[in-house]
Amino acid sequence: MNGWIRVAGLGPGDESLVTDPVRAALDQATDVIGYIPYVARVAPRPGLTLHASDNRVELDRAAHALRLAREGGHVVIVSSGDPGVFAMASALFEALEAEPDPDAHDIAILPGITAMLAAAAAAGAPLGHDFAAINLSDNLKPWDMVERRLRLAAQADFAMAFYNPRSKSRPHQFTRTLEVLREECGPDRLITFARAVTTPEQALRTVTLAEATPEMADMRTVVLVGNSATRRVGRWVYTPRRAE
Amino acid sequence: MNGWIRVAGLGPGDESLVTDPVRAALDQATDVIGYIPYVARVAPRPGLTLHASDNRVELDRAAHALRLAREGGHVVIVSSGDPGVFAMASALFEALEAEPDPDAHDIAILPGITAMLAAAAAAGAPLGHDFAAINLSDNLKPWDMVERRLRLAAQADFAMAFYNPRSKSRPHQFTRTLEVLREECGPDRLITFARAVTTPEQALRTVTLAEATPEMADMRTVVLVGNSATRRVGRWVYTPRRAE
Repeated sequence: MNGWIRVAGLGPGDESLVTDPVRAALDQATDVIGYIPYVARVAPRPGLTLHASDNRVELDRAAHALRLAREGGHVVIVSSGDPGVFAMASALFEALEAEPDPDAHDIAILPGITAMLAAAAAAGAPLGHDFAAINLSDNLKPWDMVERRLRLAAQADFAMAFYNPRSKSRPHQFTRTLEVLREECGPDRLITFARAVTTPEQALRTVTLAEATPEMADMRTVVLVGNSATRRVGRWVYTPRRAE
Repeated sequence: MNGWIRVAGLGPGDESLVTDPVRAALDQATDVIGYIPYVARVAPRPGLTLHASDNRVELDRAAHALRLAREGGHVVIVSSGDPGVFAMASALFEALEAEPDPDAHDIAILPGITAMLAAAAAAGAPLGHDFAAINLSDNLKPWDMVERRLRLAAQADFAMAFYNPRSKSRPHQFTRTLEVLREECGPDRLITFARAVTTPEQALRTVTLAEATPEMADMRTVVLVGNSATRRVGRWVYTPRRAE
């Protein structure tokens, strides 16, 4: 087989943040596979088949990519942000476990600007010290594990970034997340809600933990929680490099 | 004043990973400020002054940028990777605290591909589940804090990425880091040492915690520690999306 698979990060939304290697892979692709809104970011052209699928079928998508590559396809699996952060790279390797010879596949992961770093840049530098990245969805892990990680991350005084904080099918979990944070952190802890960063719909809002409400987050929001030293300067939020 | 400051992430090393907004800022710059090896990545041209400085003078560098911008300069502060991750963005906001009107400055942070995500992509998807990013240097925080964060991150079963794991002036801390990990994690825990990722000198090595030695890391290495479920498939390392 001379097909290949590239798992490509499209970045947070602004097309100028797509890297050259990702653009080159898309230019050479015969097939693009991914979640509907991400595939919609790829321009159609002759010789390219776009395979858009709904959420939660990551493993099917990965198996599909392996089949197409086995047949000689040049396959790009697209993720938003970075493909290694709560995205398609892990799903591809999981599907690869079922292959008789995993190393027979020509695979590369092409990194991208992940949402939390674009959000942090728009807000200032809230992740400028040690931090933890947590996916708040319990689709693939028990909620107890999420809650335990939240508590330990707060006790370690990590800044935090939350992906998938809230969805229509999981409206109560971000409410519970704020309760856990209130048990572990002071009321002045700064929280930034960054929605649709780097797109025309970008909306940024920084509030204290006391002021935060569950409705401030939705599925297009990345939530950044400062550590105990995170502070404002002018319109910016940043976490000092120095800690005592 | 009509000067401006951009804090730009040059990415992990490969010039093709520099984003368009960063390239545009460098094209328009009158001054580029940063640590010697990062400024060395910027091509000299007429009308551009390169201000390269040694390590550990981040705050001086930020104050210098503010002075130049006040005088009308178009100043790019360069960091490798992403400027918001253990880099210059926080230092700039710290310096901004001394300004009478912080919001009078035209500032933007331009994100980049941070080393841990480039390293993860080269290795597979070891950060494909919740993870913590920790700077192992104790230049700006007490070592006890680092050790406490390591333990809590391990207890939370976060995958981990370590920046600045080891330097000539701090040879013993990564030794101690491995001891702490051995107290908290099993001997089969996978650790990836990723040196100079995306450059011609890139070297990747994945070993178990039992096999890991301090000499496997230096200042050009990012260390990725899997969580308890991280596994190999073929030549790749990945952390499954699902956790029990």
